[in-house]
Amino acid sequence: MAIDYVSRRARLDERLDAAGVDVLFLPASQTDLEYFTGLERGVPSFGNIGYTNHWISGAFFAPGKEPLFVLTRHHQEFHLPGGVTGDIITATESDDGAEVFRRAFDAFAARPRRVAVGAAPGEESCVHESGAQARIAVSGRTWAETTLQLRAHRPDADLTVADDIINGIRRIKDAHEIELMTEAARMVDQVMAAVSDRVVAGITELELASEIDLRIRQLGSPSSSFDTAVWAMGKGIERDASERLSRKALPDRAGVNFDFGAIVEGYCSDFGRTVHIGQPDEEYERVYDVVMAAQEAGRRAAIPGATGGDVHRATRAVIEEAGYGDWFRHRTGHCIGKDVHELPYISEEDETPLEPGMMFTIEPSVFWPGRVGVRVEDVFLLTDSGETVKINELDNAMRVND
Amino acid sequence: MAIDYVSRRARLDERLDAAGVDVLFLPASQTDLEYFTGLERGVPSFGNIGYTNHWISGAFFAPGKEPLFVLTRHHQEFHLPGGVTGDIITATESDDGAEVFRRAFDAFAARPRRVAVGAAPGEESCVHESGAQARIAVSGRTWAETTLQLRAHRPDADLTVADDIINGIRRIKDAHEIELMTEAARMVDQVMAAVSDRVVAGITELELASEIDLRIRQLGSPSSSFDTAVWAMGKGIERDASERLSRKALPDRAGVNFDFGAIVEGYCSDFGRTVHIGQPDEEYERVYDVVMAAQEAGRRAAIPGATGGDVHRATRAVIEEAGYGDWFRHRTGHCIGKDVHELPYISEEDETPLEPGMMFTIEPSVFWPGRVGVRVEDVFLLTDSGETVKINELDNAMRVND
Repeated sequence: MAIDYVSRRARLDERLDAAGVDVLFLPASQTDLEYFTGLERGVPSFGNIGYTNHWISGAFFAPGKEPLFVLTRHHQEFHLPGGVTGDIITATESDDGAEVFRRAFDAFAARPRRVAVGAAPGEESCVHESGAQARIAVSGRTWAETTLQLRAHRPDADLTVADDIINGIRRIKDAHEIELMTEAARMVDQVMAAVSDRVVAGITELELASEIDLRIRQLGSPSSSFDTAVWAMGKGIERDASERLSRKALPDRAGVNFDFGAIVEGYCSDFGRTVHIGQPDEEYERVYDVVMAAQEAGRRAAIPGATGGDVHRATRAVIEEAGYGDWFRHRTGHCIGKDVHELPYISEEDETPLEPGMMFTIEPSVFWPGRVGVRVEDVFLLTDSGETVKINELDNAMRVND
Repeated sequence: MAIDYVSRRARLDERLDAAGVDVLFLPASQTDLEYFTGLERGVPSFGNIGYTNHWISGAFFAPGKEPLFVLTRHHQEFHLPGGVTGDIITATESDDGAEVFRRAFDAFAARPRRVAVGAAPGEESCVHESGAQARIAVSGRTWAETTLQLRAHRPDADLTVADDIINGIRRIKDAHEIELMTEAARMVDQVMAAVSDRVVAGITELELASEIDLRIRQLGSPSSSFDTAVWAMGKGIERDASERLSRKALPDRAGVNFDFGAIVEGYCSDFGRTVHIGQPDEEYERVYDVVMAAQEAGRRAAIPGATGGDVHRATRAVIEEAGYGDWFRHRTGHCIGKDVHELPYISEEDETPLEPGMMFTIEPSVFWPGRVGVRVEDVFLLTDSGETVKINELDNAMRVND
């Protein structure tokens, strides 16, 4: 089954029209462009990579028009093994990027809208209620350099962030997306099952992470979906969940936390388990049960119309009642798709009503430095029948490697 | 030896003053902030991670003032194991981020400038020649969301990109930076030496990359400095340099290209070698010599006052004369430091005169799909005595695993 980019763009057009957006620019550095056109993002880099006119790379969109790509020569030649389909303006490194960008903008703005069969010709006026000549929108993470070039070229235009418009489409996953997300979840299930036996005293967190990263890529993922985290907590281990991938041998008694994900056709998984080396103490066992009960309470609370805040509070209540509220210090989860963290968030402040087709993590934790650390994370789907079901298949019973 | 952030900021202040910049915002997502304050960037993520008010994270700078950090609670608690030193305003997920950001901006703008001993009090007027009330600058890759919040808060201000100002400082490496860059180069020398014997028929490119990534991290690097690339080229291998990390076993005759880097205290290396499996044909041997001669021609051309364009043309001439010009399709190199690709670029269009203290790659290639692929890449330093010297120590004689 292939992704239907044409119908995705039709939904985008409707929303752009409703919001009065005349031109949308989506940069090649972000997943919005991949979502609407299939132009593949690259694997990210710790130190930035950059080329002359790099800021130019992306595409223009408008209701009733085919997208127009603006790409550097270098990007096309060395970073798109899958190629690009569509209308492209290329900037070489010797071109005046600002001039190419302005020319592309003007050419695109001058193109007539397609007129749908049976519809009236599009409104051609470009004057908005605010008095602005046009409304231009960009992804929230578009570079300042690009944003300010748009501003300089069209100083009278309204310039806004389109994330709400775009998330309104992306946050509901269709049957094919659910399939890809399920496949990405199966990958991490399989990798965790393979690695669990190796969680023993003497191995390092870094070695475990490295084996996970290799296995994820051997299954066909271009990389891990985010930086794989492995970290031990427990009595006598004075460190917090922010310190990861130690190169020291693991001790003979510790709770080892895992947090990692895989990628299938750009769709990400995000997953967590805790494996105990040596016989756990009574508190670890109690906390493990509390965390599992919290996850289940979150799942039950995730019904259509409930908000991320509601799910968070239901999850949190279980941990608070058990007396560990001070050590559950993060939100309960987040939606997930082509990005690892997508809106809405399963978090205190989020008031978006949940809808069927949303996929999100429920990942409560108790991270108490020097004492106990447990987290379990799975991806869930709110189904059409209104029930929230777990996508990961690997069980999350307490695992002890004794 | 510790990095002297105070003196780095003093140099920044001078340049901001000279450019008439009243307030500079540097986002936590970019290395500029790490360079001037030591606030560590994270390892990047294939799928975005995001939190409510995430766009707020960064710091304000102004001539004669200490920086003011604005950070989300989550960023501080889970992504900064090293902590933050300085003046911080925190946004929780339930805060109105725009309001916190505006308040931080106003509080910062209202602070008096430090007056240097013996200097006259700073000019307090905020009206610039352009008539703008203030001049605000940002890193070029600051998110649009942040950029447009600044714009909305100060609609009368000039809003510009500060990359030229900042690169003017960052592009000259001091003795300590050269030491760290040298250490990062030693790491990749050591990893390549260890991995070279394993480049044999039957192993996969992915397995080789994975071993490189593990070894780099075992040496203390938080990750590889960019996505490690391994790819075979040669007769009968119909693929270009954009296709990498195959999961198929390597054949018994191929040129295997490596491109990877390590990190030491945020400083990146970038390195390349080509190892041949099986006895190479006569053309591979000729091309290998041409590529090495091209690198040496580039090195000799890199003298103070020459431009990146000059070095590129000197490198390219050797490959063109040998008849392979059509297959050297990228720039010769780039400066390098906390980012992998820094300006100036060793590229046709770059007219910046080279200066002592600049560190850059020279990485010519011949990538001819289905026929031959060779690249060698090292980091070089333009020394105070005006000579360009190679930082990497691993020799680059042709290596054949027969």
